[in-house]
Amino acid sequence: MTQIRFALAQIDTCVGDLDANAAKVLDRARQAAGMDAKVVVFPEMTLTGYPIEDLALRATFRQAAWDKANALAADLAAEGLGSLFVVVGTVGTDRANDKPRNRLVVLHDGVVWAGYDKHFLPNYGVFDEFRIFSAGDRAMVLDVDGARLGVAICEDIWQEGGPVADLAGRGIDALVTINGSPYEEGKTQTRCALVQRRAAEVDAPVIYVNQVGGQDDLVFDGGSFVVDRDGALLQRSPMFMEDLACWTLDTALEHQERVRVAPDLDPDEEVYTACVLGLKDYMAKNRFTGVTLGLSGGIDSALVAAMAADAVGGENVWGISMPSMYSSDGSKDDAADLAANIGAHYDVQPIEPLFVAFQKQLELEGVAAENLQARIRGVIVMAYSNSKGLLAVATGNKSELACGYSTIYGDAVGGYAPIKDLLKTRVWELARWRNRAAAEGVGIGGLNIVGNEAGERGIPLAGGVMIPVSSIEKAPSAELRPGQKDSDSLPEYELLDQVLAAYIEHAHGRADLLADGFDERTVDTVMRLVDRAEWKRRQYPLGPKVTALAFGRDRRLPITTAFRE
Amino acid sequence: MTQIRFALAQIDTCVGDLDANAAKVLDRARQAAGMDAKVVVFPEMTLTGYPIEDLALRATFRQAAWDKANALAADLAAEGLGSLFVVVGTVGTDRANDKPRNRLVVLHDGVVWAGYDKHFLPNYGVFDEFRIFSAGDRAMVLDVDGARLGVAICEDIWQEGGPVADLAGRGIDALVTINGSPYEEGKTQTRCALVQRRAAEVDAPVIYVNQVGGQDDLVFDGGSFVVDRDGALLQRSPMFMEDLACWTLDTALEHQERVRVAPDLDPDEEVYTACVLGLKDYMAKNRFTGVTLGLSGGIDSALVAAMAADAVGGENVWGISMPSMYSSDGSKDDAADLAANIGAHYDVQPIEPLFVAFQKQLELEGVAAENLQARIRGVIVMAYSNSKGLLAVATGNKSELACGYSTIYGDAVGGYAPIKDLLKTRVWELARWRNRAAAEGVGIGGLNIVGNEAGERGIPLAGGVMIPVSSIEKAPSAELRPGQKDSDSLPEYELLDQVLAAYIEHAHGRADLLADGFDERTVDTVMRLVDRAEWKRRQYPLGPKVTALAFGRDRRLPITTAFRE
Repeated sequence: MTQIRFALAQIDTCVGDLDANAAKVLDRARQAAGMDAKVVVFPEMTLTGYPIEDLALRATFRQAAWDKANALAADLAAEGLGSLFVVVGTVGTDRANDKPRNRLVVLHDGVVWAGYDKHFLPNYGVFDEFRIFSAGDRAMVLDVDGARLGVAICEDIWQEGGPVADLAGRGIDALVTINGSPYEEGKTQTRCALVQRRAAEVDAPVIYVNQVGGQDDLVFDGGSFVVDRDGALLQRSPMFMEDLACWTLDTALEHQERVRVAPDLDPDEEVYTACVLGLKDYMAKNRFTGVTLGLSGGIDSALVAAMAADAVGGENVWGISMPSMYSSDGSKDDAADLAANIGAHYDVQPIEPLFVAFQKQLELEGVAAENLQARIRGVIVMAYSNSKGLLAVATGNKSELACGYSTIYGDAVGGYAPIKDLLKTRVWELARWRNRAAAEGVGIGGLNIVGNEAGERGIPLAGGVMIPVSSIEKAPSAELRPGQKDSDSLPEYELLDQVLAAYIEHAHGRADLLADGFDERTVDTVMRLVDRAEWKRRQYPLGPKVTALAFGRDRRLPITTAFRE
Repeated sequence: MTQIRFALAQIDTCVGDLDANAAKVLDRARQAAGMDAKVVVFPEMTLTGYPIEDLALRATFRQAAWDKANALAADLAAEGLGSLFVVVGTVGTDRANDKPRNRLVVLHDGVVWAGYDKHFLPNYGVFDEFRIFSAGDRAMVLDVDGARLGVAICEDIWQEGGPVADLAGRGIDALVTINGSPYEEGKTQTRCALVQRRAAEVDAPVIYVNQVGGQDDLVFDGGSFVVDRDGALLQRSPMFMEDLACWTLDTALEHQERVRVAPDLDPDEEVYTACVLGLKDYMAKNRFTGVTLGLSGGIDSALVAAMAADAVGGENVWGISMPSMYSSDGSKDDAADLAANIGAHYDVQPIEPLFVAFQKQLELEGVAAENLQARIRGVIVMAYSNSKGLLAVATGNKSELACGYSTIYGDAVGGYAPIKDLLKTRVWELARWRNRAAAEGVGIGGLNIVGNEAGERGIPLAGGVMIPVSSIEKAPSAELRPGQKDSDSLPEYELLDQVLAAYIEHAHGRADLLADGFDERTVDTVMRLVDRAEWKRRQYPLGPKVTALAFGRDRRLPITTAFRE
């Protein structure tokens, strides 16, 4: 009979920051030792950060990562932590062909122990691993005080066969899997069901540790967990925050003990928090402390401003009202109210004098004149960004980006676009949720993203944030000409978003969309808008992208295509 | 004894344009039949265009491509061309897992014949095929009048083993390979040496047909050829133009007859033509007939304007001089001279009044004020683009983009950047070459890109194009403040470009660069500039990219990385 205490170290790493990542491992190992843990499990590619993309191809980087793993093992031993088994991910090198490998190593007794290389290299959606890594080809079982621990890295458990199937016959006592699994709506359930299947396959509990935090255009949600061989959920860490949880394996027991299961989040809270965490980490990892954005009085910029206030505090948000001759008084008031509610800096920069100066030379008409207004605003936002060192954030939502209802180099200006993956109807839902949270005090105040003392929510919400009701309720308008409404150019958003979800997310073709019950005129309108926007966007490859996956990268499509269904 | 006459149909396809691609196949098949050909060979993925990226994942597209292949086979037969063996590439579906396949089919006797699926799926540099396709697993030999023809698709001949090794033991009479091989400097020689090795391996002549033309951010150079079993070059089509060449295999002969070998191009002519063809096809495939760009009087915009005039004619180029208070008279004169030389439309749009209007509100200083000038110019260029339906082209070169000497949403504005892969020293060389070509009449006048009647050059150069000598010879300056010179911020370009080539193209680390003989101060300056520019560019992912490969996509690096050598 053996008892092994595991610590699930759900941390937020930074790609390329070997020093900081290693320091975090050392810190959590210390804490875990204080909690009597024997095995400390970190996420996929802990030391290098994930996803490292082509950075793995630089030999100098791989050498530096290897040196860091060795130094960390020595540091652990020097602190008296050499008896721990510290399971971390890093990059290795395939000696046969000098290609990188996605590797799991165990730091123990002052040295870098047994390595396991990821077998299945995902190369779909947001993943590019087969491009970068060569694949491992054998399973590994780690002996810890007589307990037999199988290991796997992320995709290894998503595919049939391979190392998990190999482990199934070997009588392991537990399967440890380290992951960098990005957030999508509903993925908590998908992952749990998958791990339940694998637990049955290997006939042992499975320990699943996931990365947390934003990295570039991805958000990792954490939510690490342990499932028993019969599928019972024994432990679950909270989403969207770092966490260090312990769980003990008793090899003498047929069924293991349940420890703590973090509660499910409300779906709107989950998505809102994912957006805030993505922005917060993008800023932190790129060393921005403040953001700037245009505040139009509309719902999109209001929601983004609220998210920014929750991410970095209202005092670090510079909101700019840039009214034109077509801006309504209501819009100006709503922008000012929003800025006051979130405690943002607020400047008014009228664009009419600038518009007049350009028009004196250019005499533009129609859409070109509308785009000119948006681009003057883009210049102003970037001037704030450059002169104050602020991150410019774009406020476009997925519905308008998908339909091309946006100006390149205008409202599309920005280094990060927090709501680019949210359809317009979801934007409204999240604004309403945020106002309810403010009213009810949900998640407001002193929670800390590191640690889990004060609750199970990943991001503390800023106090007092309220989005003006008129921003939520009024008819959407770009206000680029008198009396303009979005519904002049687009179907009503309730309908539009359903068609967009089917066409973009689920890749339904024209016949599928008609079979879905959408009327022919709407289908043809939406397909024409989306195809034209894709075409325009691909002509200007520097423009914003529309993603098929929530929080994912853009679909890869050729720029030039004449294909029409 | 059998004689088989092959036609090498080197064509320019358009991704997704099934109708136009199929029509081109039909047209070339007719011509080939008129030349008594029996087998007509087209490039990789003829019907779909290449690279199709994630478009292949749409089931509706695959079905449409399959229907088109069948319709084309029927059309060929209906025209009395059913006895031809028409070898085309298209997309297929792997029945086991519903994934796309990169497929070669033979259209014959009214039906779609034997299919061969690409075995090696490149997934490095500009290639994403493993992401998209599933791999074929068997070789194919085609019997044509008793002659045994092996087939392969592009990467299949670049890797050891696989279908070519399989064919080596089978006594084939010739190997037919269809390709979508993008242009790089020196690749003609690389390809020839490779094919000579494969000819020896299969002990038979190899027929290599390559795609030609620009597609998105890639340029395909054609240069199709036939190599004998002993490595002798028997036939070579010209680069950068469509071509239909014939070559006859006589199975009774140990050594085949030499037909025609297009001459090598001057290296500067080769690169210049690649740039022009890329722009020309980008415009044609995106349905642009004119371009607009800022003319500063400097060498970059002058070279891009000359390329644009060669691509679509000076009368379709709108050059905009946008002088500021810091622009010299010389610069203004050079811009006007260049526009006159190439026969472009030429407008002067002073930016000082606009700059003053912005500064009245914003009061910017330093780099923010310099960026403001560049962004006002960006707004003007986009106003011309929108109001006249012109493609805005960016004029940045690789040296300045690599060092971050460029303004996002300013001079970086544009849908296509013709010289983004050229280091500054190469820009000067190409400008000098273009002036020599104009003086000597090289390639000027009535050549036609389709067909090969009048010569072996791919693009006709426009008459009269001369780049002002002072644009080539003066010290480079951004002219964003009084007396500014590039050399205030950057090492001299002769030195800078050598370090950039080593650091970016060859991924030399710091130690390597010192071993290359560069002095420590220069190495540290350049590494700092490039790393900082990469970091800034990754913060604004919509910005211009710097590529490691000439004419390739950007390196994939994570946005956030703290790694420094």
